Amino acid sequence: MPSQTRSFRSAAALALLLPLAAPASAEDDPAARYRETAGRILGRALVDEGAWAKLEHLTTRIGHRLSGSPGLEKAVAWAHEGMKAEGLEGVRLQGVRVPRWVRGREWARVVSPVQRELPMLGLGMSIGTPKEGVTAPVVVVRSFEELTALGREKVEGKIVAFAPDWEGYGRTVRFRSSGASVAAGLGAVAVLVRSATGRSLATPHTGALDYDAGVPRIPAAAIAVEDAEWLRRMAAAGETVTASLFMEARLEGDADSANVIAEIRGSERPDEIVVMGGHYDSWDVGQGAHDDGCSCMAAWQALTILKELGLRPRRTLRVVLWTSEENSLNGGKAYRAALGTDVASHVAAIEMDGGCERPVGFGFSVTKPGTAPPSRRGGGPAEPEDPDAARALATLREIGSLFDAIDAASVKWGGGGADISPLTRDGVPGMLFDMVGEYYFDWHHTHADTIDKVSPKDLRRATAMLAVMGYVLADMPGRLMP
Amino acid sequence: MPSQTRSFRSAAALALLLPLAAPASAEDDPAARYRETAGRILGRALVDEGAWAKLEHLTTRIGHRLSGSPGLEKAVAWAHEGMKAEGLEGVRLQGVRVPRWVRGREWARVVSPVQRELPMLGLGMSIGTPKEGVTAPVVVVRSFEELTALGREKVEGKIVAFAPDWEGYGRTVRFRSSGASVAAGLGAVAVLVRSATGRSLATPHTGALDYDAGVPRIPAAAIAVEDAEWLRRMAAAGETVTASLFMEARLEGDADSANVIAEIRGSERPDEIVVMGGHYDSWDVGQGAHDDGCSCMAAWQALTILKELGLRPRRTLRVVLWTSEENSLNGGKAYRAALGTDVASHVAAIEMDGGCERPVGFGFSVTKPGTAPPSRRGGGPAEPEDPDAARALATLREIGSLFDAIDAASVKWGGGGADISPLTRDGVPGMLFDMVGEYYFDWHHTHADTIDKVSPKDLRRATAMLAVMGYVLADMPGRLMP
Repeated sequence: MPSQTRSFRSAAALALLLPLAAPASAEDDPAARYRETAGRILGRALVDEGAWAKLEHLTTRIGHRLSGSPGLEKAVAWAHEGMKAEGLEGVRLQGVRVPRWVRGREWARVVSPVQRELPMLGLGMSIGTPKEGVTAPVVVVRSFEELTALGREKVEGKIVAFAPDWEGYGRTVRFRSSGASVAAGLGAVAVLVRSATGRSLATPHTGALDYDAGVPRIPAAAIAVEDAEWLRRMAAAGETVTASLFMEARLEGDADSANVIAEIRGSERPDEIVVMGGHYDSWDVGQGAHDDGCSCMAAWQALTILKELGLRPRRTLRVVLWTSEENSLNGGKAYRAALGTDVASHVAAIEMDGGCERPVGFGFSVTKPGTAPPSRRGGGPAEPEDPDAARALATLREIGSLFDAIDAASVKWGGGGADISPLTRDGVPGMLFDMVGEYYFDWHHTHADTIDKVSPKDLRRATAMLAVMGYVLADMPGRLMP
Repeated sequence: MPSQTRSFRSAAALALLLPLAAPASAEDDPAARYRETAGRILGRALVDEGAWAKLEHLTTRIGHRLSGSPGLEKAVAWAHEGMKAEGLEGVRLQGVRVPRWVRGREWARVVSPVQRELPMLGLGMSIGTPKEGVTAPVVVVRSFEELTALGREKVEGKIVAFAPDWEGYGRTVRFRSSGASVAAGLGAVAVLVRSATGRSLATPHTGALDYDAGVPRIPAAAIAVEDAEWLRRMAAAGETVTASLFMEARLEGDADSANVIAEIRGSERPDEIVVMGGHYDSWDVGQGAHDDGCSCMAAWQALTILKELGLRPRRTLRVVLWTSEENSLNGGKAYRAALGTDVASHVAAIEMDGGCERPVGFGFSVTKPGTAPPSRRGGGPAEPEDPDAARALATLREIGSLFDAIDAASVKWGGGGADISPLTRDGVPGMLFDMVGEYYFDWHHTHADTIDKVSPKDLRRATAMLAVMGYVLADMPGRLMP
């Protein structure tokens, strides 16, 4: 689940606005210091086919990688063996217990006043229906307010359909996350949720829900935008639709999984770490190509390329393919937990989890432990107020200027990632990899998240940028933040 | 199935190229003669909500309209009653026997080397599988040539997957139409066909197949572009995929259906007819909104508006909602058959069957009986060689100029429609309604062909243009063609 914030201001324009935060001397200017090395890395990575070959294997031969599934196990073993075979350092599996949620068979149908199939996908972590399914009249609402106004009398025993307007992923996904429990609190027996997308070809989008404690757990499924719109029109016409939902979905306890880790050890300060990666698990539809296989393969290949170029930074540069982001975040949590009190060892954490469309640059944020992270979405400040953070941002913009030739020099204030959130919450400077975000949410969590949607050029660019950013942050004389 | 040819030359530019074919005097210039009347029609139709209200009822309350289904029966009765209630003339049902093909339950799965669902739609008119389904290794080909080169030895007992490159609808749809019989001729037990679309969100597209006589009939299903691409990648990697296909599809004989007809009778020459319309049936997925409900509602509303404006042309202007275009063309054939030797009564036939995106104008063609119709796709001439046809085209371009203000003044040489093909084959001048064709084939024959994809503005424009073109052709002093 990537951040939704975007900035299109150029690094150069921002530098003009930030004279006080700019580096004090040429020696402190990482762009000047690393121009030649960055050129070597870019020159190699921008023609490299390795990330594509890896992504093709992962998506085509292994396929989707749901937590607790054979696909994820196979993918973990394959990456582990591959990293060892490449001679990367510190290659290891960090054991993580993950939920084993199983979809099973599922379907939905309109039973009156017409009869037809409803293309659907059960929401991740949903319970199933009774064996005979659930059949009930459908109450259509556009918002939580509308549902609450109906009250228990009109909702009890019904299937609630959330058919909101599309207001972007961040606002629309609320109904997927919370709809089941809000409706259950009023006595609903199941929910159908408009897929969290702006464009649709009758494509349902799955994704996790969160059940609240204290209310009954009811089955929940995503329906396509087309059918959410149809339900709205039928309701507006005064027609009551009755639907049936059948889901075998169930949580089968926990399973063994692992974060896959590889490094290039630091030459001077190996105990200081720059970590980068994405989440290795996916939903059980499509191939998890954009979400988030491409990021894992880009980060891995970035390390591979640095090793092949013989570039060893001062600090340790580590890649982690985090497990089980989609339905537990247990990979990210386990990674943080294993650090214990040593979280200060982490100089920076970079997450790529917005797919692999054309890269724009990076987002950056840092949180004093105990305070809220910056959020552009929530109307937070466009620039950091803390002087250390402002200096770090200026440094990152200098590094970002190395990507000007591939139109990806933007470094904006704000943004992190789910897997690195247990680190950034404790003060580790966090970065997200920023994309144009043009079609990502059309594919996200669907059967259509497949490698045919990935551009090899964009994947090479992402690989190149992770290699340069990771290397520079790990090698520059001073830490990004004091 | 609309024509694929498009012309973007303006009528004005073409008029300059055709001085000899231009009307000889202002009196013969239909644009001058009908400018005021056309203005009245456009002024009314471009703010009219009637077609939208009709389309909303048809798609939302009735839904899809497969030949032989309750939905089509309901739609026929609703239009018949509605036309009578509006006081249109000659409102009647023309009985037509249509095939009753039933999809039944269906699914496809990959069973090795991975296990997963394959989103699919059985092809229209396909037979079903045995009760236990069909399970076999998949042979992946990109072309008929590749399949033929493999020969019976490598195809017998296998499922053939046609995974061609996208070369536009006209070329790619061959595999849907003919793939089953070509593969059956080499001993295949079933076929999977890449959906005939350029863009996909894991959306399978149905549509009719044609079984050849003399080879076994085998079950056939469309798969999504994503899975066709995946099968190609697996084959390229040397992996053999085994799949299972289950389809209950069956042809349940014939059913009663009807063409729905309404008219405004001609004031001077009522036995001369201008006919316009679209096909009223659809596939059994989505709502048949673009294919072809919008056209039927636009044509019907065009007649409604002319009646409300009190405009009665010299000749009869007739609207026909043809039945069963998708899987038999029996509506168009029955309409032609009922004319007997009187086909010369038809001055022109206008079909709208390319969805309701932004209108561009019209296509026109006329065939001397016994000769092939003009085809731009097949590299035919860009302008008619016959002087009568050239004069008619010039006249139509004059009429088309009345649509300049809504950027829809193009009238190109070439194009007709499936429903009117039994008429145009016998010499009736034929016209297609021409659209930009930007997204039509993304929605075509899918669950996503729904009213949320239709722009009310485009529907008003189409209605207005059919009203003007139909009225002028029916009213102008001379016939379009001698």
